[in-house]
Amino acid sequence: MGTGRLEAFSDGVIAIIITIMVLELKAPQGSGFDALLPILPVFLSYVLSFMYIGIYWNNHHHMLHAAEHVSGAGLWANLHLLFWLSLIPFVTAWMDENHSVAAPAALYGVVLLMAALAYFILGRILIRDNGPESELAKAFGKDIKGRISIVCYAVGIALSLWHAWLALTIYVSVAIMWVIPDRRIEK
Amino acid sequence: MGTGRLEAFSDGVIAIIITIMVLELKAPQGSGFDALLPILPVFLSYVLSFMYIGIYWNNHHHMLHAAEHVSGAGLWANLHLLFWLSLIPFVTAWMDENHSVAAPAALYGVVLLMAALAYFILGRILIRDNGPESELAKAFGKDIKGRISIVCYAVGIALSLWHAWLALTIYVSVAIMWVIPDRRIEK
Amino acid sequence: MGTGRLEAFSDGVIAIIITIMVLELKAPQGSGFDALLPILPVFLSYVLSFMYIGIYWNNHHHMLHAAEHVSGAGLWANLHLLFWLSLIPFVTAWMDENHSVAAPAALYGVVLLMAALAYFILGRILIRDNGPESELAKAFGKDIKGRISIVCYAVGIALSLWHAWLALTIYVSVAIMWVIPDRRIEK
Amino acid sequence: MGTGRLEAFSDGVIAIIITIMVLELKAPQGSGFDALLPILPVFLSYVLSFMYIGIYWNNHHHMLHAAEHVSGAGLWANLHLLFWLSLIPFVTAWMDENHSVAAPAALYGVVLLMAALAYFILGRILIRDNGPESELAKAFGKDIKGRISIVCYAVGIALSLWHAWLALTIYVSVAIMWVIPDRRIEK
Repeated sequence: MGTGRLEAFSDGVIAIIITIMVLELKAPQGSGFDALLPILPVFLSYVLSFMYIGIYWNNHHHMLHAAEHVSGAGLWANLHLLFWLSLIPFVTAWMDENHSVAAPAALYGVVLLMAALAYFILGRILIRDNGPESELAKAFGKDIKGRISIVCYAVGIALSLWHAWLALTIYVSVAIMWVIPDRRIEK
Repeated sequence: MGTGRLEAFSDGVIAIIITIMVLELKAPQGSGFDALLPILPVFLSYVLSFMYIGIYWNNHHHMLHAAEHVSGAGLWANLHLLFWLSLIPFVTAWMDENHSVAAPAALYGVVLLMAALAYFILGRILIRDNGPESELAKAFGKDIKGRISIVCYAVGIALSLWHAWLALTIYVSVAIMWVIPDRRIEK
Repeated sequence: MGTGRLEAFSDGVIAIIITIMVLELKAPQGSGFDALLPILPVFLSYVLSFMYIGIYWNNHHHMLHAAEHVSGAGLWANLHLLFWLSLIPFVTAWMDENHSVAAPAALYGVVLLMAALAYFILGRILIRDNGPESELAKAFGKDIKGRISIVCYAVGIALSLWHAWLALTIYVSVAIMWVIPDRRIEK
Repeated sequence: MGTGRLEAFSDGVIAIIITIMVLELKAPQGSGFDALLPILPVFLSYVLSFMYIGIYWNNHHHMLHAAEHVSGAGLWANLHLLFWLSLIPFVTAWMDENHSVAAPAALYGVVLLMAALAYFILGRILIRDNGPESELAKAFGKDIKGRISIVCYAVGIALSLWHAWLALTIYVSVAIMWVIPDRRIEK
């Protein structure tokens, strides 16, 4: 089965996830510039989550561009990825209300970790569907960045219990690492 | 008439339905891990509804992939299906606020039942549009799974009046039955 | 310029409009079946607005299927139509809170009237873009249904000031008239 | 890489941004026509923001129609544009609650300015991706309108601190300038 409608549906879900997060950015209380200060952390976590969803859209775009076929299992692996991505607005909202607190920072990391694992599983299934000699398999390769990310999220979750800001620093660093586009797959 | 734009529009509506449900997952009251406990039932019903919407997207994808033409009646049958699916966030929200209570569990079943009937009607119309010798007609066949589901939802509605958890168990079981992809149509 | 992306964007906007209206269907206060009674009018107005948005999607689909080209003016005429459709959730919400009251029933009619005029303008521009001998011009013809609707909405607005339920009866009747698919264009 | 999925994703995000703004149009308090008066400013700012998002969709449509290829950097430049557009509902909501006040009018201008710069950057990258002899480079030309807009937004921000209504007048004027379709690119 072709990947056209899978891409269209994923585009729709990812577009909605990335956009509904802005609903958390409530109009400031007050009409002066100083009223913007209290919502700065909310804005920054919006930027971080926007980047993460953007990264997933970007990588998903590259991966499915290289794939030609997708099996029924691939459709479910894709829905599984979308499920974890759909929780990002929820964990972002919790973090917004509790800056530098252990539990929300840990949960944010758990959702990132689960999304990364879901992406990894989707990649494996798509490689199986398209064969080890496919363009996708060559492009995906060892997926070193993906493996590094998974380790970083796990470390971030552990560190969040000790000091939440350390975890956030790790999440931001991983996002920056991904913004540099994935040359392997792009080629 | 081709099925391209019908698929695109359905993808859009289903993508929005599956995503706006996450708006019901409000940020927990409190900043500790224990604050997550009260929203666990809400999370579980989100998982169930996400699965159901995912199942419908999956089956809809398979069915329209096999179809080549769609009549004006087919367009309306599709909108009718989308109407019942659009009520899933509403019945999920009611169930979230009343765990294991008769009426919300029954209404959830009613919406599932109506969506299943709408899907059945859409299938019949598409088979009529594409002819009894079409790929679709062969793939759709007797649609045993669909008929079993309809019976299960009816039983679930009846049981919900007696014990709501029995109904939920049935709804979960039907969802699991569907996650196993429909080999008939996929071929 | 082709009509592909115009259709895709319109599908997206219409899909969102039709789905966000369900957010007005708040979970009932209470856990029994009797708690559903107070939201029955809200549900019925949801059905009516869902039908109207569905009708516009359906007709839009047929009209653009027959069109081959669209000019810059056509893009703006399409956005103008989407603007009025986007107000339907707003006027539905006002009507939900005030059943059978003059002003909300009149405003609902005004938005329907403006949407119908916007659709008429879009049709004229598309016919101009595609030429008087085009498939579209033949299919669109005199657009008798469209003209009848415009008159009905105007009558409905006038009657709403006298008795709101008369206006609603007219709006429902026009919707039913449209659900019967437009054979002229479908051919 | 082709531009198909980039267009589809952008369409989805822009469609959602343009539609969720209507959620700010809350049902009026009261059931008479006079209850509409207090929400008139909210309605007018909805019209302005709808026009701006519509203008961006229109120009984006024309620009990507002329482009054939897009690099990884182009994907990020596009997400960067969508980021600033996604903030329009937020700044609109703040302006809704504080008419003719300096800070909200200034922030509205800042978001318009950043979106215009992001659009300019996207244009430069797409021209680089498609070559100086491409259809796009000829169509985009010196982008005089874009440069004028950027200057106007900067002037608007400065004036907003002195008198907010002057800034709004400038923003409205720029929108009207853009509604006249861009003949250079359309050809």
